[in-house]
Amino acid sequence: MLSQKILDELKKIVGPDNVATDRQDLICYGYDATQMEFLPDAVVHPGSTDEVAAVLKLANAAKFPVFPRGAGSGFTGGALPKGGGVVLVVTRLNRILRIDTENLIAEVEPGVVTEQFQQEVEKLGLFYPPDPASLKFSTLGGNVAENAGGPRCVKYGVTRDFVMGLEVVLPTGEIIRTGGETYKGVVGYDLTRLLCGSEGTLGVITKIIFKLLPLPEAKKTMLTIFDSIDGAAKAVSTIIGNKIIPTTLEFMDYATLQCVNKRFSLGIPDNGRAVLLIEVDGDRDLIEKQATRIQELIKPLGLVECKIAKDAAESEALWKVRRLVSPSLRDVNPDKFNEDIVVPRSKVPDVIRVIEKIQQRYDIPIVNFGHAGDGNIHVNVMIDKSVPGQEEKAHKAIAEIFQAALDLNGTMSGEHGVGLAKQPYIHLELKPAQVAAMQAIKQALDPNNILNPGKMFPVGQQCAPE
Amino acid sequence: MLSQKILDELKKIVGPDNVATDRQDLICYGYDATQMEFLPDAVVHPGSTDEVAAVLKLANAAKFPVFPRGAGSGFTGGALPKGGGVVLVVTRLNRILRIDTENLIAEVEPGVVTEQFQQEVEKLGLFYPPDPASLKFSTLGGNVAENAGGPRCVKYGVTRDFVMGLEVVLPTGEIIRTGGETYKGVVGYDLTRLLCGSEGTLGVITKIIFKLLPLPEAKKTMLTIFDSIDGAAKAVSTIIGNKIIPTTLEFMDYATLQCVNKRFSLGIPDNGRAVLLIEVDGDRDLIEKQATRIQELIKPLGLVECKIAKDAAESEALWKVRRLVSPSLRDVNPDKFNEDIVVPRSKVPDVIRVIEKIQQRYDIPIVNFGHAGDGNIHVNVMIDKSVPGQEEKAHKAIAEIFQAALDLNGTMSGEHGVGLAKQPYIHLELKPAQVAAMQAIKQALDPNNILNPGKMFPVGQQCAPE
Repeated sequence: MLSQKILDELKKIVGPDNVATDRQDLICYGYDATQMEFLPDAVVHPGSTDEVAAVLKLANAAKFPVFPRGAGSGFTGGALPKGGGVVLVVTRLNRILRIDTENLIAEVEPGVVTEQFQQEVEKLGLFYPPDPASLKFSTLGGNVAENAGGPRCVKYGVTRDFVMGLEVVLPTGEIIRTGGETYKGVVGYDLTRLLCGSEGTLGVITKIIFKLLPLPEAKKTMLTIFDSIDGAAKAVSTIIGNKIIPTTLEFMDYATLQCVNKRFSLGIPDNGRAVLLIEVDGDRDLIEKQATRIQELIKPLGLVECKIAKDAAESEALWKVRRLVSPSLRDVNPDKFNEDIVVPRSKVPDVIRVIEKIQQRYDIPIVNFGHAGDGNIHVNVMIDKSVPGQEEKAHKAIAEIFQAALDLNGTMSGEHGVGLAKQPYIHLELKPAQVAAMQAIKQALDPNNILNPGKMFPVGQQCAPE
Repeated sequence: MLSQKILDELKKIVGPDNVATDRQDLICYGYDATQMEFLPDAVVHPGSTDEVAAVLKLANAAKFPVFPRGAGSGFTGGALPKGGGVVLVVTRLNRILRIDTENLIAEVEPGVVTEQFQQEVEKLGLFYPPDPASLKFSTLGGNVAENAGGPRCVKYGVTRDFVMGLEVVLPTGEIIRTGGETYKGVVGYDLTRLLCGSEGTLGVITKIIFKLLPLPEAKKTMLTIFDSIDGAAKAVSTIIGNKIIPTTLEFMDYATLQCVNKRFSLGIPDNGRAVLLIEVDGDRDLIEKQATRIQELIKPLGLVECKIAKDAAESEALWKVRRLVSPSLRDVNPDKFNEDIVVPRSKVPDVIRVIEKIQQRYDIPIVNFGHAGDGNIHVNVMIDKSVPGQEEKAHKAIAEIFQAALDLNGTMSGEHGVGLAKQPYIHLELKPAQVAAMQAIKQALDPNNILNPGKMFPVGQQCAPE
């Protein structure tokens, strides 16, 4: 519990209306997309960088933990206040400070919602490609902290590739600027990229300078259905091997197709075993040429059907198949563990085959879809937690799935991070010397272990609130 | 001086033929492109990662500094053994381990020469874009350690954007792997990008996994001459504002033109005040269209002449103008300080104007050229060191040039780094809290301050060789 004195200090810093301790408020900021739940002792809503800094200085003086939080849409518990303490919500810092059309950069506060930012830059003919599935509610600060991805990363890269500079409150409460307004810049260590994906453990992001691109002139969407996973996977490497890097190469396996088809009757042919949703964007003439070439290339690979959108409405209809995946999954089982392994692109069929075996062995439905272009597969282990033993089985299956990805030179997570959810498995991927180096960096920047303690990997002892 | 015992230990680790202590050998590894010189006590040439690790373990036990070195082509002294110690040369580790055409990745050792790597991947239809001017002799390990750039970065990004994973020997001698073979990967802190540009102070890179691209189908080169710097700068933002991101947008100012024209009589028109060398690459039809559009866009901006290469030979002839810049500079004055400031693209004319004033005030010739597409200007302060007072004047002028870049929201260095050369100015760009955070990271990973001590910013006391 936080003492009344600390609560009073917090109220002095952010204003009494911006400190919450009522149980209903604590509940609202105690969960995320993992379905885990931990109640904080207080929730603060700072309105400026200086207020964030003052909260962290107080936390260091009084030794209570602080958990930064955007929209709480994370899949690994990165924002959850395990052990109690103060949740620091950045959603009041939600201004787009400027969009510079001449230098193709934008400066924003961390609480701006991803999609809102995309829409604003697109009005000016510019483009911010990273598109995590949560973009309608996730915040840009959270996107940077987790190094969010999305379907368009195969062509454009991940959030990190668009972050040029940050304003950050370090765990000690010091305010620093990293990087800047120029894409090139090599003065000092690259704290900008160290902060990207550090899951809120090394600093609270209070401003972000993003690199933007010119908005592509046009796009073309194709829904392609194959008679085998190997065909779909081969299509991915064939397209890229022929110098076409599509904007998206979204993959859905047979289990996914069955789910969606059953619920929404989309008319997927019976011999369809895998779907690739392919989109190309750019110059209008070029993408026409690319679409034609893609059809030629994939025809011999067991192509069952290829629907090409003629306009935006038809494109939207094709994307519907992909968007309906998540709502359909609950028909399989009520609870899901959504993992996001990555393997080198050519190894996608191999990892799917291993997952099929794991599914048979544990007798749990596993549904796979995701970003085949960069080998990033969302593996959904579907269980019913009310059935005794299912959750335990799921954890065992997940450990084997992670190991399968690692055995194929992949990683346990391409987008979601470690947080709390993947901690039990981190030793599978990171060797002790790697973890020790990361812990040393954490300790160097957060000597009192104040900021988001206990996340990613354990560092020292988490301090208890007074 | 290193004791005989340590020298014997070093010989045991790397073999007696791979330890040099003769004066002529020490001289060879005591300089770089800065013209600074510091003699090491010994030079070792390890032949494996394990040997690198053993040298660093010995260094930690016996407390002597180790300075990693590639080709020694750096412009800021990052590889120089100031204070003495052991230079650890990685050029024996020079194998391209594999090029994976299916997953578009390559794994190399750090001593591979940049251009050689580019040629090898191009034979397979692949593309490694980063192209520092030193690419004929610089090594990939050095490129990563300095986060090297080059003309093509405006479209493709810097070295960091192509590094997917590393094998690194930490300063303590521990061997770790960072990142991996997948572009997405968010398990743990991003040590890969922290290492990129850390100038050999946080680890010795022993293997690199690079991301590759498909080789563009074709390219088109245009040499465009403008009657003012503003016209050339406006051309840059107009082209990009019209959704064309050229591969290169190389800029040369009037002083540069005069130099080249005087020596090589290239027939630059009298009213030519600035040159842009523009190259586009990609789909053959698309680049034709882009070249036509670029001509339309830049015509009203004071275009004096526009030469378009019809084939590779003509392209090479146009590039000659750019390549002749460096050899021509020595006609101005025998000694140069080559700085590489960056400003937001739209601020290039502003910074050039400030530099002109600085040049007048100090009465030193300053020649500017570089990568206008990303605002990265190479500012060459040309002096004759044998004239008393000129060097001092140059340093004062450089400090003002850096400040001018910073005042325009730029940076002191886009490609060269800090090393020793920019240390006196680092406080202009980095605030004490930023430097403190970087020092804390350095101390966390290199508690004995063994690896490349005294570089970038001072950390503790450099230990003296026994």
